[in-house]
Amino acid sequence: MSDKMLLKWMKQGHLSIPKLLLQYYTDLGLTEVELMTLLHIQSFIDEGDYFPTPELLSERMTLSKEECSNTMGLLIKKGFLSLDKHWDNGILYENYSLEPLWLKLMEELNQEDQKQQEKSNAQIEG
Amino acid sequence: MSDKMLLKWMKQGHLSIPKLLLQYYTDLGLTEVELMTLLHIQSFIDEGDYFPTPELLSERMTLSKEECSNTMGLLIKKGFLSLDKHWDNGILYENYSLEPLWLKLMEELNQEDQKQQEKSNAQIEG
Amino acid sequence: MSDKMLLKWMKQGHLSIPKLLLQYYTDLGLTEVELMTLLHIQSFIDEGDYFPTPELLSERMTLSKEECSNTMGLLIKKGFLSLDKHWDNGILYENYSLEPLWLKLMEELNQEDQKQQEKSNAQIEG
Amino acid sequence: MSDKMLLKWMKQGHLSIPKLLLQYYTDLGLTEVELMTLLHIQSFIDEGDYFPTPELLSERMTLSKEECSNTMGLLIKKGFLSLDKHWDNGILYENYSLEPLWLKLMEELNQEDQKQQEKSNAQIEG
Repeated sequence: MSDKMLLKWMKQGHLSIPKLLLQYYTDLGLTEVELMTLLHIQSFIDEGDYFPTPELLSERMTLSKEECSNTMGLLIKKGFLSLDKHWDNGILYENYSLEPLWLKLMEELNQEDQKQQEKSNAQIEG
Repeated sequence: MSDKMLLKWMKQGHLSIPKLLLQYYTDLGLTEVELMTLLHIQSFIDEGDYFPTPELLSERMTLSKEECSNTMGLLIKKGFLSLDKHWDNGILYENYSLEPLWLKLMEELNQEDQKQQEKSNAQIEG
Repeated sequence: MSDKMLLKWMKQGHLSIPKLLLQYYTDLGLTEVELMTLLHIQSFIDEGDYFPTPELLSERMTLSKEECSNTMGLLIKKGFLSLDKHWDNGILYENYSLEPLWLKLMEELNQEDQKQQEKSNAQIEG
Repeated sequence: MSDKMLLKWMKQGHLSIPKLLLQYYTDLGLTEVELMTLLHIQSFIDEGDYFPTPELLSERMTLSKEECSNTMGLLIKKGFLSLDKHWDNGILYENYSLEPLWLKLMEELNQEDQKQQEKSNAQIEG
């Protein structure tokens, strides 16, 4: 490998995925394709592009432009992704946000926590 | 969220995915489900489990045990995953490794690099 | 760079540092050398070594063995690091844990949060 | 911890540090304070700020504004950091880059690789 390509590798950086997300995404009701779509969107946001188009996602995925568009719509509908719009000086800004995903994950972890506490309480009282 | 759950979050850690892998996995011939399978295996390896079973993967994925087993077999066949076996003191050790994936990614980046160099040479010679 | 070295790079992995830790470690009362010491310990723990010795740390730092030992002792004293000991089958296990660091960071973030809420309340009441 | 703070945590993201950098920075001639300075600069670059001032760094470090300025100057002098300048439409753009650091790390890994090969050759020839 040329040094130029290695530099590209080193500079390109990494996407950090919480291991708890890897463990719980199916419990949240996400498929692998949906999770990958969210990770791609996060990757674009990290690079400063807050509104990646279905075309852009499609170039990096096995999905067609239409399938990307449908998946993104479904993720918004199912409450994992939000599209925040605001006007500034006559320009419409549209930003995707994964905040709903993190809120859902927090909720799931809380429920897991409560279940475990109830279990251990039941054992003590048992 | 309870502090206990937050601590779990903080201690659980993250999986770092090279952004170049996110950009090129389709060029390598991987689907989203196959990539997620590899990421799950990497996550288990990071935690010290070098031979996660299809059952274990299946608990974290939308795939059944059989589908996980088939996908893992396919990934080995297609040259993205290797299963290294060695005997030690009469015990058989089996370790999965993603080394083949990284080698394929390196090869792809090299080819991309050469294409771009040929393009820029062609433009200079124009 | 040889492919062998690149593979080493790709396989070696990354340490993920929360950006909030980078922003608040001085508020917690940590110096750069102390933070680096904690990151080295975390890196060893990630690799499955829960009790790295001052010698091991010293090989990777500008500090001498004695200085590493002193810094680790200070970090325990100041409540950023804990050394958990337990006996199992007649063997003493000693594990370092960064749990105290995460608890301190959580506390700091909570205090920041309250300060900001009080500020915005004061502005509303103005 | 309030959900608001946790969201901040989840959204803030992580800085991924190659473990090989943690292992070899002293061999490259870097101190802990110098490495932390580089990591802070990388963190700002990740967030889209390619020219963090000594004031900004100083707010996150134990160093004064002057000490940050001196350390940044020294890192450029020692060849770990570069400051790339270019004019665009009458505006001067100044961008810090850690490319020199990665090149130095590559060089170091190459030398390590050669030393080990020579050793193993010497053993074979023994």
